[in-house]
Amino acid sequence: MTSNPDTPNTTDTIAAVRRSFAAQGLMSLLGATLDSIEPGHAEILLHFRDDLNQQHGYFHAGVTAAIADSAGGYAAMSLMPPGADVLSVEFKINLLAPATGPWLRAVADVARRGKTLTVARADVFSSAQPQSRDTLVAAMQQTLIRIDPKPSP
Amino acid sequence: MTSNPDTPNTTDTIAAVRRSFAAQGLMSLLGATLDSIEPGHAEILLHFRDDLNQQHGYFHAGVTAAIADSAGGYAAMSLMPPGADVLSVEFKINLLAPATGPWLRAVADVARRGKTLTVARADVFSSAQPQSRDTLVAAMQQTLIRIDPKPSP
Amino acid sequence: MTSNPDTPNTTDTIAAVRRSFAAQGLMSLLGATLDSIEPGHAEILLHFRDDLNQQHGYFHAGVTAAIADSAGGYAAMSLMPPGADVLSVEFKINLLAPATGPWLRAVADVARRGKTLTVARADVFSSAQPQSRDTLVAAMQQTLIRIDPKPSP
Amino acid sequence: MTSNPDTPNTTDTIAAVRRSFAAQGLMSLLGATLDSIEPGHAEILLHFRDDLNQQHGYFHAGVTAAIADSAGGYAAMSLMPPGADVLSVEFKINLLAPATGPWLRAVADVARRGKTLTVARADVFSSAQPQSRDTLVAAMQQTLIRIDPKPSP
Repeated sequence: MTSNPDTPNTTDTIAAVRRSFAAQGLMSLLGATLDSIEPGHAEILLHFRDDLNQQHGYFHAGVTAAIADSAGGYAAMSLMPPGADVLSVEFKINLLAPATGPWLRAVADVARRGKTLTVARADVFSSAQPQSRDTLVAAMQQTLIRIDPKPSP
Repeated sequence: MTSNPDTPNTTDTIAAVRRSFAAQGLMSLLGATLDSIEPGHAEILLHFRDDLNQQHGYFHAGVTAAIADSAGGYAAMSLMPPGADVLSVEFKINLLAPATGPWLRAVADVARRGKTLTVARADVFSSAQPQSRDTLVAAMQQTLIRIDPKPSP
Repeated sequence: MTSNPDTPNTTDTIAAVRRSFAAQGLMSLLGATLDSIEPGHAEILLHFRDDLNQQHGYFHAGVTAAIADSAGGYAAMSLMPPGADVLSVEFKINLLAPATGPWLRAVADVARRGKTLTVARADVFSSAQPQSRDTLVAAMQQTLIRIDPKPSP
Repeated sequence: MTSNPDTPNTTDTIAAVRRSFAAQGLMSLLGATLDSIEPGHAEILLHFRDDLNQQHGYFHAGVTAAIADSAGGYAAMSLMPPGADVLSVEFKINLLAPATGPWLRAVADVARRGKTLTVARADVFSSAQPQSRDTLVAAMQQTLIRIDPKPSP
């Protein structure tokens, strides 16, 4: 049996996504968890703390952007073959309403998977309960580039 | 002598910017400082820590975005009359090179100040020394909306 | 019976959208038609011509952007009270695949309607038939500002 | 003497840029000219016509975006080796003021040239005279991808 290097082995890739998320110091600092990961889809969840806020006491746009960016990145990585990684090339985020929390959830989906570049979109919801999607507070659109592992010598 | 409510009293406004920055819990969490603030211009500086990284050990794009967003916001706020605040409507950031640090500096300038909306641009530099601008690692463009204080009853 | 100035009279507003579209010289120059308009949703359709292309013979990104921008604008305007207009504050568009046509359709929906600012998203499809959605070739995210009519003296 | 395929021969590349611009049907349809081209920099100029307008009689945002996108693309292409082309991956444009014209000039510069991706920024000015830069009406930030010629068989 041969494996097609361009067809992700879902189990391996999902495990690699989880390892990568665990290696992001910032996600740990923010208290964010990878709440859902499946091919082409990722969700990141976090709870409000005072040290995540901006001057009005809401989540800082940088926090909202950080979990949207990571969610989009892992939605893209989940479609890659084992060993391949992705990096954010750029993203654009609209902040639609105050992110009051206490729960903040970034929900990302791949809009198009290309050979080199993948485009993801994410919606971020502020909610009273962790599993709710009460208010859409941000909408993100992102470009990611595939990074292949260097061949062994 | 009367004051024109649309002409910022620079001293008061700069003081208000500093208070607002100090009230952003996230800036403190990230270890960021407001290194420069003058009318239409702001710079935010921080030093690398492992809990600010992404999976390859560089600054997380969310950190880069957070200081670029705040720098753009304070560049805009510095042109507002005392009492007026600004909120980010949206921003777009290109991640141009790995943000290796150890120093990361966001340098923001107002591109156009409008009555309701202001547009700022920021460049983020990764450097060996705090005052250097070794490598341009991100370029941001941002829209901000002016929030006026509610009139007293 | 009183009318609520913030609740659009759908018939009047849709008629105003159609008049506005007809007043856009560029849409006529490009051969674009407003193929669908309903509250919060607009679609613009056009057919390939050599004078709409870029250097490889596909639709120019400026054409794709123009119909995406107008579609988003009319999706937003369709939710405004009669007399109110909208202007594009900014938009971001990802070009996902060559827009070969011959048909190009921009499909826009309002993501959030605010008091001052409205955010729309549009997908642009390239297709063999006018009513098809064969290939997603662009994804746009846009901010629009409401312009109210000046009060009569 | 050997040529380095990654070092553009300026003369050849500039000639290729001019041929590419001439092959863009849309630029001709809009009446746009490539007014300046040098390594890392491009300017596109056009004059107002009623068939380029939006509903208020100003330049349509799609026109502004079209010349900003092409200017950014040619600024990037001007740094490529002969034979290489570029395509827009995405761009974001802020519309800062009404583009009344009658002259509209897009001025683009490369912010960072990468191996695969290049980032350009453009400012668009509305002016009374063709060589003036009276009012900054738009600011664009763009990502481009290098397309290499297919090797001959």
